[in-house]
Amino acid sequence: MRNIKIIIEYDGTNYSGWQRQNNVMTIQEKIESAIEELTGEKTQITGSSRTDAGVHAKGYTGNFYTNSKIVIEKFTGAINSKLPRDIVILQSFEVPYEFHSRYNSMGKMYSYTIINRRQAVAVGRDYIYHHKQILDVEAMQIGAQYFMGTHDFSAFKNLGSSAKTSVRTISRLDIVKNEEIIKIYIAADGFLYNMVRIIVGALIRVGEGKIKPSEIKDIIESKQRSKAGKSVPANGLCLEEVFY
Amino acid sequence: MRNIKIIIEYDGTNYSGWQRQNNVMTIQEKIESAIEELTGEKTQITGSSRTDAGVHAKGYTGNFYTNSKIVIEKFTGAINSKLPRDIVILQSFEVPYEFHSRYNSMGKMYSYTIINRRQAVAVGRDYIYHHKQILDVEAMQIGAQYFMGTHDFSAFKNLGSSAKTSVRTISRLDIVKNEEIIKIYIAADGFLYNMVRIIVGALIRVGEGKIKPSEIKDIIESKQRSKAGKSVPANGLCLEEVFY
Repeated sequence: MRNIKIIIEYDGTNYSGWQRQNNVMTIQEKIESAIEELTGEKTQITGSSRTDAGVHAKGYTGNFYTNSKIVIEKFTGAINSKLPRDIVILQSFEVPYEFHSRYNSMGKMYSYTIINRRQAVAVGRDYIYHHKQILDVEAMQIGAQYFMGTHDFSAFKNLGSSAKTSVRTISRLDIVKNEEIIKIYIAADGFLYNMVRIIVGALIRVGEGKIKPSEIKDIIESKQRSKAGKSVPANGLCLEEVFY
Repeated sequence: MRNIKIIIEYDGTNYSGWQRQNNVMTIQEKIESAIEELTGEKTQITGSSRTDAGVHAKGYTGNFYTNSKIVIEKFTGAINSKLPRDIVILQSFEVPYEFHSRYNSMGKMYSYTIINRRQAVAVGRDYIYHHKQILDVEAMQIGAQYFMGTHDFSAFKNLGSSAKTSVRTISRLDIVKNEEIIKIYIAADGFLYNMVRIIVGALIRVGEGKIKPSEIKDIIESKQRSKAGKSVPANGLCLEEVFY
């Protein structure tokens, strides 16, 4: 049996997230069907994590076992020829039998894209969250520093998180403004359920002046989800990279 | 009668271009219908130019006459409330009666976005042209210099151009590479039919090494459309701004 690792880009707009479920269309199901069509084998992909409906990915990672004799150089193009336009395999690698996309992951990086102006956005609207009230990006950048490092992020997880511990280490949280676009990059050794979207929601409250940057520290220490406020919509979120 | 100038952003994916035509959906028609619904008046918008099917805009400009008493500050939001998500009015201004979006335009800036890698693109695929063969961006930047300034661009117009002269002045042609994305910005006092897409097509041939950068000069001087080669698809093109 060969173990094949694939790097996947997808537009999550028309899917109910990554993970296979009954009666709804998911990305996992689409790719498994494409591989089955290609190899003739029933296939189950191990994914690096779940992603919610409407969330995008430029570097999702999965692996699957196959007896197919297709040479590795041909796998990417061959699977892509069976996929719809909103899912693209970027690379395929032959990896050791033991490789596991989730257990072996050392961390991930997400991006969250905001357009900060009065009127809504037409071009790219499926990938950008529109926020009307003008945000103080400098205050957000100060607030972001309190997230850095190792903390118990219980205040920043929604129910549905099956993780044993809520302690995570954030290694990067950059907020970059370019005219009307604010882009937030966040990397950690792992993320709790909805963690990025709740963190961005709290940073937006800082940007609106509703809370002080230093209050981020208090919210983390409270370990109470209710203190962190509303999360932001799925469409601005993109899984950029999974680290191994 | 009041003359209202509007700045418009639209995602051209699902439209047969700007200009009203029978039996197909156009952006002009959508906005005219929205204004009519709002004011109760039959409305005709004067647009700054046509755009082809699938071309986008972040700064299209139009104007229309109305007897409506709606204060100018409310116009933008009021029209937007009647529009689909892929068309957004960004700003509205009350302008002198004589103002004409096309005749008074001093020039325009377009962008063209390419993703240059082996595999197709999922995230943003409606706004990005995928080009497989790796491009020499430095050669393209040298080639771009030959377009700068005032020339007869007959070699870079398709049939359907009703312009009296093919002489235009290009004031900016920047090619910016950021990882896999190549973005081309081009500004001129005016553009002939399909001019940007034919110019980008010629620059891609330079990037592929099929023609030398200096051959751009020969193509311009030939004034023959056949020398300029294939144009690029509509989806990478975006009208960024109209200058007045």
